[in-house]
Amino acid sequence: MKIALCQINTIIGDLEFNKNKIIACYHKSVNDNVDIVIFPELSLVGYTPQDLVEKKEFREAVNNAVYEISQITGDTAIIFGAITEDDDLIGTDIHNSAILCFDGKVQFIQHKTLIPNYDIFDEMRYFDSAKETKIFEFKGEKLGISICEDIWNDEDYWRKRRYNIDPVKNLIDKGATFLINISASPYAYKKREDRHKMLSMLTMHDKIPLAYVCTVGAHTDLIYDGASMCFDNKGNLVRLGKIFEEDYIIFDTKSSYSPITKTEGTFEEEVLNSLIFGLKEYCQKLNFKNVLIGLSGGIDSALVTYIAVKALGKENVHSVLMPSIYSSEGSISDSMKLISNLGISSDNISIQPVVNEILNMLSPAFQNLPQGVTEENIQARVRGIYLMAISNKFNYLLLTTGNKSEMAVGYCTLYGDMSGGLAVIADVYKTDVYRLANYINKDSEIIPKEIIIKAPSAELRAGQKDQDSLPEYEILDKILRMYLEENKEISEISKSINNEKMVNFVLHLVDQNEFKRRQAAPALRVSTKAFGYGRRYPIVQGWRK
Amino acid sequence: MKIALCQINTIIGDLEFNKNKIIACYHKSVNDNVDIVIFPELSLVGYTPQDLVEKKEFREAVNNAVYEISQITGDTAIIFGAITEDDDLIGTDIHNSAILCFDGKVQFIQHKTLIPNYDIFDEMRYFDSAKETKIFEFKGEKLGISICEDIWNDEDYWRKRRYNIDPVKNLIDKGATFLINISASPYAYKKREDRHKMLSMLTMHDKIPLAYVCTVGAHTDLIYDGASMCFDNKGNLVRLGKIFEEDYIIFDTKSSYSPITKTEGTFEEEVLNSLIFGLKEYCQKLNFKNVLIGLSGGIDSALVTYIAVKALGKENVHSVLMPSIYSSEGSISDSMKLISNLGISSDNISIQPVVNEILNMLSPAFQNLPQGVTEENIQARVRGIYLMAISNKFNYLLLTTGNKSEMAVGYCTLYGDMSGGLAVIADVYKTDVYRLANYINKDSEIIPKEIIIKAPSAELRAGQKDQDSLPEYEILDKILRMYLEENKEISEISKSINNEKMVNFVLHLVDQNEFKRRQAAPALRVSTKAFGYGRRYPIVQGWRK
Repeated sequence: MKIALCQINTIIGDLEFNKNKIIACYHKSVNDNVDIVIFPELSLVGYTPQDLVEKKEFREAVNNAVYEISQITGDTAIIFGAITEDDDLIGTDIHNSAILCFDGKVQFIQHKTLIPNYDIFDEMRYFDSAKETKIFEFKGEKLGISICEDIWNDEDYWRKRRYNIDPVKNLIDKGATFLINISASPYAYKKREDRHKMLSMLTMHDKIPLAYVCTVGAHTDLIYDGASMCFDNKGNLVRLGKIFEEDYIIFDTKSSYSPITKTEGTFEEEVLNSLIFGLKEYCQKLNFKNVLIGLSGGIDSALVTYIAVKALGKENVHSVLMPSIYSSEGSISDSMKLISNLGISSDNISIQPVVNEILNMLSPAFQNLPQGVTEENIQARVRGIYLMAISNKFNYLLLTTGNKSEMAVGYCTLYGDMSGGLAVIADVYKTDVYRLANYINKDSEIIPKEIIIKAPSAELRAGQKDQDSLPEYEILDKILRMYLEENKEISEISKSINNEKMVNFVLHLVDQNEFKRRQAAPALRVSTKAFGYGRRYPIVQGWRK
Repeated sequence: MKIALCQINTIIGDLEFNKNKIIACYHKSVNDNVDIVIFPELSLVGYTPQDLVEKKEFREAVNNAVYEISQITGDTAIIFGAITEDDDLIGTDIHNSAILCFDGKVQFIQHKTLIPNYDIFDEMRYFDSAKETKIFEFKGEKLGISICEDIWNDEDYWRKRRYNIDPVKNLIDKGATFLINISASPYAYKKREDRHKMLSMLTMHDKIPLAYVCTVGAHTDLIYDGASMCFDNKGNLVRLGKIFEEDYIIFDTKSSYSPITKTEGTFEEEVLNSLIFGLKEYCQKLNFKNVLIGLSGGIDSALVTYIAVKALGKENVHSVLMPSIYSSEGSISDSMKLISNLGISSDNISIQPVVNEILNMLSPAFQNLPQGVTEENIQARVRGIYLMAISNKFNYLLLTTGNKSEMAVGYCTLYGDMSGGLAVIADVYKTDVYRLANYINKDSEIIPKEIIIKAPSAELRAGQKDQDSLPEYEILDKILRMYLEENKEISEISKSINNEKMVNFVLHLVDQNEFKRRQAAPALRVSTKAFGYGRRYPIVQGWRK
């Protein structure tokens, strides 16, 4: 069996664009004399169309596009992902399906059986589960076709399983000789290795080859890294798609390939590339040519600026320096060095006259009350106004530069530094921001070392340092990582940190700042637990008061 | 059978508070010699704890509280809602359960069978479905106990059913003589009437009495209206709990009651009361004594101010007038009249000096480009800064005053008039804002008639009117209502409005402004389809470009 895996980048809801891409890849594959050409999960509609599936006109348009694709097929089979409907009047009546066509018509449809509904996944909201899994005979092979999550419930691999059925095992039991899985699997660091291990064990254990085709691209906050995989019947990974770009892979079960053992780069390579890709995609798909960043002289905005330059080119990245009376000399000189290293444009606009005028106007209302957080927030918000004004005027996408540690504890100002269309590093802890910065500088100094070595400060009052209000980032991030990614309990974290009071203080901040995060810009997800859709906490609640 | 329905207001996650309330109500019921005392769905944990259920320490604390409640019971039975766990290692292992205790221990647990996962509901994320439904014999009655959604799948009532099982029918088939349903059902206008009709048909058809106990309270954006209901075995509603407040109701199947026919007030009464209640709850549960509102002289901020006064008392409502050179004379004088009618405090702080200073500072960057939306947004954002500064300084909760029509088409400024902790009327269309204002004035002029009759304007440039950019609100709201609440297709709406171009224009705006709504404050939900968790659309998408 000779199979082409088309690792394509689709646009959610843009049926015309996706259909044309599928048809073009099909024609190319026909020229390559393959038996079957396969496309990722929901490739015709984009992953995931969310509530668009509730619109009848959308579903009808999908039906029409499926028909059009089926019409162009000949002897070579195509398998692609789309939504389909049933008419049992129970549930949503909509399925997430793999559609197999050849000879000008739809020959077989396999619905998804395991419907993920955890973390960022909401699929039970939309999709009914398949009532059965069937194998499909084609050119002497018995194809076992499954969709993404269907293959993530292997009894041998998982200690705790989410589902009590294993559709892939069912297919093998029914005599499948070749497995196909069409996927759309959101990126998180280390997940590719997981996939590799799990699929390797499955194909080795069941002595069956597998073609696993993944989508690539980014949709707002979610990044899909590609890396389609083919396994022989001994559990060897023999074909691997490109990472963070489209690819076209031929897998011929009659050929011999050398096994591939490495699927994942270092943390720094992986996360940096995913962020660059995520930002590039967001801009491309929303038609933004230029981005805007407020440069504070700190490491977060420096990292975001580097990422933006890599994603869009230096000529499309614009920065603004917005000093106040509390800005250190370094906040300007270090930023200017960064600007020069990266070759980007910049403006320098003091916020002080505006801040002064605001304080002046508010002084009758403020009645000589002592200064405090209010005045700090005013500075952050004036910067927000400047940035949004330039963004509006020139149609630059404003990037927000807060990191995950800040977002977690609310060390950020709503409508101030939280302003922007996309939060580029809001799923990267502060300590990892340093790791990435040092990695960027591995060959030469791109991010000025002054920016890396200075003590973190919001510079919103005289002599302010982050560590006046927060634990050292090494400890803070350890607490946060255990709490968020590892879902550890307070007692466990307190034991590990050996400081119950600090842990309580930090996690209280996390809880209390849910209201800020609810109004935050979407954040590119690179970890297994990001803020946003993947983590749902009530704003009003009384646990751990 | 004599049963007490405890329609209580709980706090999500505050197990101590909820447990003590449950125990206090139990003791009261014992004094009233009832057979069973029942509490709403998840009454011990609050509805809904969301991802809190993923924390083991939370689940352990719930187990302990369940044990403590069971310990205090005697001869009188108690049924309350809590999460419980199973150990089959499939799915989440967590259930949404009704727990029945007497004689000092847990005697029976019925898990929820139908797990809602649409609109605002995410329960499949958390809860496994019951494997079986059982009846429980108590004092000569065969109790059929179900939880909320379980009773919403009656074959006779629904044309299209969501689920292929009907747990309440199962209970009746197993010989249940008395039905109990414990509920937490988010408010939307007309839903109470729906409940009444559906439950009346069920109890009449199956000739069985029902005690249906509902939670009351508001949790951030979701309002629970109470209105617990008891039906005799002829389908008559015979007991009805209070609306928007706690209640304690005795239902004795041996007593005779006169049927209640009316469960819902007029649109104006209902929606106004729900908003007043929702705001009051948000402030109480987050410990805000005071609120702050920016008064524009328009009808939206006037309505929100009225609601705030009703919710918190005039002494706790503070307003700020923030005129600019584009403000009409009426924007001040009409607001002053409203302030005087309501008896609230106010500040008047011009934004003009600050706007001028910002434009001055930005002028080198703006390079004499023509003025436009950028400058309009700056004005809205300076108002946002003023309001947030006063909010920060005095710990007043800032209320945002945008209506649903504006939020839908993005006729609002991010970080400007969208600033605030709670969006009070963001689920109320502009035309309904007028209805509510006229209702408020039914006896005397509270909202000055000048505010009601003036043409809507954001007053961000000379002579600006909303209708320069948008269709008449009567038509706009008709389009939006069909599209959002009624889930109508564009073709249907175009036919109904007889203006395809306008419909396309409006719905394109709705799609395009998803990015703004993603960063909006939580909005009190009073319709069947509100923006927020209940409506999930991608920001980056290409349907209907």
